Amino acid sequence: MTTMQQAIDHVPGFQAVGVHAGLKKNDQLDFALIYADRPCTVAGVFTTNQVKAAPVLLDMERVAASPQGIRAVAINTVSANACTGSKGRANARKMARMAAEALGVDENSVLVMSTGVIGTHLPMTKIEQGVERSVAQLANDDWAAAAAAIMTTDRYPKYASVTVTNASGVYTIAGITKGAGMIAPHMATTLGLIVTDALLTPDQAHAALRAANTISYNRMTIDGDTSTNDTVLLMASGASGVGFLGEADRVQFQRALNGVMMFLAKEVVRNGEGVTKLITIEVTGAATEGDAERIAQTIANSLLTKTAFYGNDANWGRIIAAAGRAGVPFDAERARLWFTTGETAPEADNGLLLFELGQPTDYKEADAAAIIQHESVYVTLDVGLGDGTARVWTSDLSKEYVAINADYRS
Amino acid sequence: MTTMQQAIDHVPGFQAVGVHAGLKKNDQLDFALIYADRPCTVAGVFTTNQVKAAPVLLDMERVAASPQGIRAVAINTVSANACTGSKGRANARKMARMAAEALGVDENSVLVMSTGVIGTHLPMTKIEQGVERSVAQLANDDWAAAAAAIMTTDRYPKYASVTVTNASGVYTIAGITKGAGMIAPHMATTLGLIVTDALLTPDQAHAALRAANTISYNRMTIDGDTSTNDTVLLMASGASGVGFLGEADRVQFQRALNGVMMFLAKEVVRNGEGVTKLITIEVTGAATEGDAERIAQTIANSLLTKTAFYGNDANWGRIIAAAGRAGVPFDAERARLWFTTGETAPEADNGLLLFELGQPTDYKEADAAAIIQHESVYVTLDVGLGDGTARVWTSDLSKEYVAINADYRS
Repeated sequence: MTTMQQAIDHVPGFQAVGVHAGLKKNDQLDFALIYADRPCTVAGVFTTNQVKAAPVLLDMERVAASPQGIRAVAINTVSANACTGSKGRANARKMARMAAEALGVDENSVLVMSTGVIGTHLPMTKIEQGVERSVAQLANDDWAAAAAAIMTTDRYPKYASVTVTNASGVYTIAGITKGAGMIAPHMATTLGLIVTDALLTPDQAHAALRAANTISYNRMTIDGDTSTNDTVLLMASGASGVGFLGEADRVQFQRALNGVMMFLAKEVVRNGEGVTKLITIEVTGAATEGDAERIAQTIANSLLTKTAFYGNDANWGRIIAAAGRAGVPFDAERARLWFTTGETAPEADNGLLLFELGQPTDYKEADAAAIIQHESVYVTLDVGLGDGTARVWTSDLSKEYVAINADYRS
Repeated sequence: MTTMQQAIDHVPGFQAVGVHAGLKKNDQLDFALIYADRPCTVAGVFTTNQVKAAPVLLDMERVAASPQGIRAVAINTVSANACTGSKGRANARKMARMAAEALGVDENSVLVMSTGVIGTHLPMTKIEQGVERSVAQLANDDWAAAAAAIMTTDRYPKYASVTVTNASGVYTIAGITKGAGMIAPHMATTLGLIVTDALLTPDQAHAALRAANTISYNRMTIDGDTSTNDTVLLMASGASGVGFLGEADRVQFQRALNGVMMFLAKEVVRNGEGVTKLITIEVTGAATEGDAERIAQTIANSLLTKTAFYGNDANWGRIIAAAGRAGVPFDAERARLWFTTGETAPEADNGLLLFELGQPTDYKEADAAAIIQHESVYVTLDVGLGDGTARVWTSDLSKEYVAINADYRS
């Protein structure tokens, strides 16, 4: 039995806190610390961008070196510590060392994450202040504050948790995330931290995180830009003492983790810069799953599609055109396209059929317009070539997105 | 000797006209016809989108079948006649047949182009009116009107011509084009028609058009969306009697054609929806030319880069981040990035050096800001890995782009 909630109570083995380190103005929370009272099993997925920020390089190294020995994660906003060369790498190490010293743990057991402007050095005095304040307030154990403290242009903090019961007992999976701009396939400026008190081996943690990531963070896009800093970590304290007795327990964990991470990924899209709509693109009947994802991602990243959604214009031709340029087999004569509302796959039928046999159906424009005005629109494109299926979450593209990103550094 | 001008006088062998067919409101020009008084050599490049509009399919067939027998091109706006199935294909043939009958030429010698909303059928009564009016007014021979009549959301008509003198005589190359939205690598909703009175064989025409297209229309992007309708045609009437006596004459023609097509391509970007800036991205030192183009195109299509340019924000980190996700070798430690103004490659130095050795230089923000306020910004990124070079033209992304594309069908 699992119960998902949009809240995080205490997760055994962990303490979380968010503070104002002076990075942002007006006492806004801008620095978070997550601490584990024992060494944790850890797994991570990191940006595929060849330009990896200093904290990403450090975490990749430490996760590989100590997959059962991580104690804390320190996270700052405002500066991404990316494109900062050797000085940046030294600063990332220093930030981890400061936290390790304040917490009294081994330096190599601390990970760091940074988000903000690329190409600026970490303001180390403020980072130090963040470390001091967060360690001092650790006992508050406030996950909502931690989620708020990692936001950049996010409009609200994003977090969720689920409690899972199996034959051995009860455990929790909880996660916080940030997104906003630069969200693209393969996680672009997303930071995510998932913690659990379940007992996991490094192999179990790694496999579960990869599998969940593939159908959650890697299936969302806002602007097609992949950041230098993307990181999603899974930390397992084992404090519940509950592990997997068999495959059924493992599958149950995977499903719960998938649920948390898909929820967080959708939250990231919904909370994207200037987003007014969550659009689910489901492609079915492609030659392969890879082809289905390629078509779905191409549609999801099409500016013309995204601006049409913003304008409540059911300009479905742009969707077919995007599918046609995805670089995988697509034949308009065999494709069918439906619009409906909601976030989950339509059950009985696929909604309003707009296009088949290479041309528009005789649907009524008013019916299409009525669907597209909703905050959640579900687009189903059946390619008619095979069994490949994929689902991608995207947003509309608004004038506000442009305004936010035109002035991001000011 | 060649002289380029932003005007088109009479091109021997051709007559051009633009009329109001009733497709647009308020007597706006919306239908163009280009007629040749003799069969022309023709070459075409067409969209790479697998979803090809009916007029594209028709032209591909006729260019292949009659590479020396084309007499006319009829062009309509408002409906793209794409995603319109068998009825759409019949309508494209009918549009060509109407023009052929009115002109008294063979049906198969007429090509058609359509631009506008995808998924709507051609309003054939208005198309017929367009054919009748344009044939009636052909004697006006007004290329500026033809260029105006093919606009969609373009802000101004785009045309240019060049006169070339070689040992055999004088000939002209002239071109009209439209663009606005959906402009991407490989020509997205671009229509271009280049005419010349030089004497060309089909092989010469085809090779010259391909070569020029590779470094002009295929090197510009506004929104990364590739349309269903892209077509660039080259028609050679041979009316000047001037052909190529040798390789030098051929190269001279190629250069002149390159010049016209690069000018038109830049005009398309500058005239893109909501565009306030023409940005040239020059990538040098990539492992191969293909890699250089891939990096340049990725930067050119990055929403975060484009919104930063719109906001006059020299947020160069987004350029490095885009280069890092281009999918080809890129090492930030070896890269160098400069900003300067203008549209042509800087001569003495590359301008203001912003980034090298993996981190920002000590440039002054005010100097970067001063450059980026210009209407033409030249970005040079040296990858430091080889000899591959490519140049791509792009635009900023403005709130106006979103507004235009949100409401395109209304």
